[in-house]
Amino acid sequence: MLIAVDAVGGDFFPGNPVLGAVEATKEFSDIEVLLTGPRDLIETELKSVDYDTGKIHILHAPEIIGMEESPSSAIKNKRNSSIVTGISALKQGECSAFVSAGNTGVLLAASMFLLGKLEGVLRPTIASIYPTVKGTSLLVDAGANLELKSDMYLQFAKMSQIFAAEIMGIENPTVGLLNVGEEPEKGTELHKEVYERLSKLDNFAGNVEGKDILYGKADVYLTDGYTGNILLKYGESIPDILAHMLKTTMTKKGVDEESQKFVFKMLSETLNSFNYEHVGGVPFLGVDGVSLVGHGGSSVTAIKNMIRNASECVKHDVNQKIVSSLNN
Amino acid sequence: MLIAVDAVGGDFFPGNPVLGAVEATKEFSDIEVLLTGPRDLIETELKSVDYDTGKIHILHAPEIIGMEESPSSAIKNKRNSSIVTGISALKQGECSAFVSAGNTGVLLAASMFLLGKLEGVLRPTIASIYPTVKGTSLLVDAGANLELKSDMYLQFAKMSQIFAAEIMGIENPTVGLLNVGEEPEKGTELHKEVYERLSKLDNFAGNVEGKDILYGKADVYLTDGYTGNILLKYGESIPDILAHMLKTTMTKKGVDEESQKFVFKMLSETLNSFNYEHVGGVPFLGVDGVSLVGHGGSSVTAIKNMIRNASECVKHDVNQKIVSSLNN
Repeated sequence: MLIAVDAVGGDFFPGNPVLGAVEATKEFSDIEVLLTGPRDLIETELKSVDYDTGKIHILHAPEIIGMEESPSSAIKNKRNSSIVTGISALKQGECSAFVSAGNTGVLLAASMFLLGKLEGVLRPTIASIYPTVKGTSLLVDAGANLELKSDMYLQFAKMSQIFAAEIMGIENPTVGLLNVGEEPEKGTELHKEVYERLSKLDNFAGNVEGKDILYGKADVYLTDGYTGNILLKYGESIPDILAHMLKTTMTKKGVDEESQKFVFKMLSETLNSFNYEHVGGVPFLGVDGVSLVGHGGSSVTAIKNMIRNASECVKHDVNQKIVSSLNN
Repeated sequence: MLIAVDAVGGDFFPGNPVLGAVEATKEFSDIEVLLTGPRDLIETELKSVDYDTGKIHILHAPEIIGMEESPSSAIKNKRNSSIVTGISALKQGECSAFVSAGNTGVLLAASMFLLGKLEGVLRPTIASIYPTVKGTSLLVDAGANLELKSDMYLQFAKMSQIFAAEIMGIENPTVGLLNVGEEPEKGTELHKEVYERLSKLDNFAGNVEGKDILYGKADVYLTDGYTGNILLKYGESIPDILAHMLKTTMTKKGVDEESQKFVFKMLSETLNSFNYEHVGGVPFLGVDGVSLVGHGGSSVTAIKNMIRNASECVKHDVNQKIVSSLNN
């Protein structure tokens, strides 16, 4: 199976994407990688590592899209970018999936416009993998659709359940509607309607509140992309803020160097599962093709895991299962 | 100045409200308290403390409203409750303010229906005090209005700025619009319109993201009550979850009792400012009367601080300043 990897996406390119690709081909014997990006950059990076030349290929794409570029101008003006080239190759059937740690907005737009939507899908969505005390949940929508209609909630729930079951290995994943209280009559008119419709879904966990998220009360948390995006970025900010505040407390109290190190070690081991770098990538659910996006700060391991997630999406026919679920 | 205090509100009544009231009269020489609730309960509690009988008064109200009761039925069926009786006394001018750690929904509804809105106010709002690395910010709306119109954002911004300046002592408080990105064109059509209108406000900090909240990037964070409520409860859940996870890590690693205690001591001192119990109360901004609500878990100190906040609202003519600001 050939997976295209954006060699110039994310904060640490070409190093992390190229090394992650090499790691993936070493760990998963059935995977070959097609690195998309400027050939010279990729070849220079590859010089520093041992790799199987039969498993790493290059698709030259001279243009690089920055993390802050707007989707419309990037797609229009950078047709030779790693993202547009890679997704076009996927559309042509030259590879089985495309993954990138680059600009999420551009990736989503390119995936939607070039690949199109799966049959019956109203809108594709981004499901973010959210660490909890129990393991990992999905937060949907993570920012692709700022406002939702009730039909979309229902589709997002079904698509997320398929991803959670097939790729995350969660049996009978539960879905909770993020709301201001547990009772069915809580929330706006839209939330009440969504609650009613979700009641017919398998494994609906009812309304869940903000305090339930980190406890992992549901496997899938449904909310609009505005709220989801704010919650996602808020959660990501916690480890650094906490470390900063602990440092201030201990410095003020004159705690010795060694004890400080011990506290930080405990904190860092505790929050390791909350480190979003390690999560790998998440798919654009509902797009007609396997296209995944990873955190901009993705480590080599994160890139490798994203490639694995992509291959699992292909092997498990996630998109075919989504089509069946939405059209039956 | 006479402040009415709900003696049977919150998770620890009548102890904490009664003791908090006594503390307030001791610390602030110009304050007298009118305790509302069942007379026998209050008198029994008062027996255990020294207090100035000239400064603590009782307004008998035999009915108690539970934390989970619905506003409409509570207000209709419990007219002799501490909340309805206390707010009615405020309406009649028998006291200067009413404070409670009880059922927020009932308090808000009773304040709105019995006191009414200030001139020019579209909807009253709850501003939640949100601890940050820099100090404290306000998160508005915290759940009173799940959906907002652009006029409401503007009014909530102005009312919150007045509360932040007059009661929290923040000079020229800045207002940030919670959004999915910093650029003015981010968010829904409504957010873009709100951004445009807020641009004319003094000290508008622009759009702020989820990752900015805990850093205290703005003094007032504006969002709808759905998102605000979820963020508020999410934030409140962090300290307990963190302690739970740290305990798991250290137990698994066989860390000795004394070292564990040290880590928890550092964590608890660090998160002390994040302990919502200590914050005191927040007002229903826009209501024609000074009515404050505190966290259900309010400590004695929190109740005392809520009484102080209420007296400051009266002294600083917060409501008159809101009317002037909204009608000019």
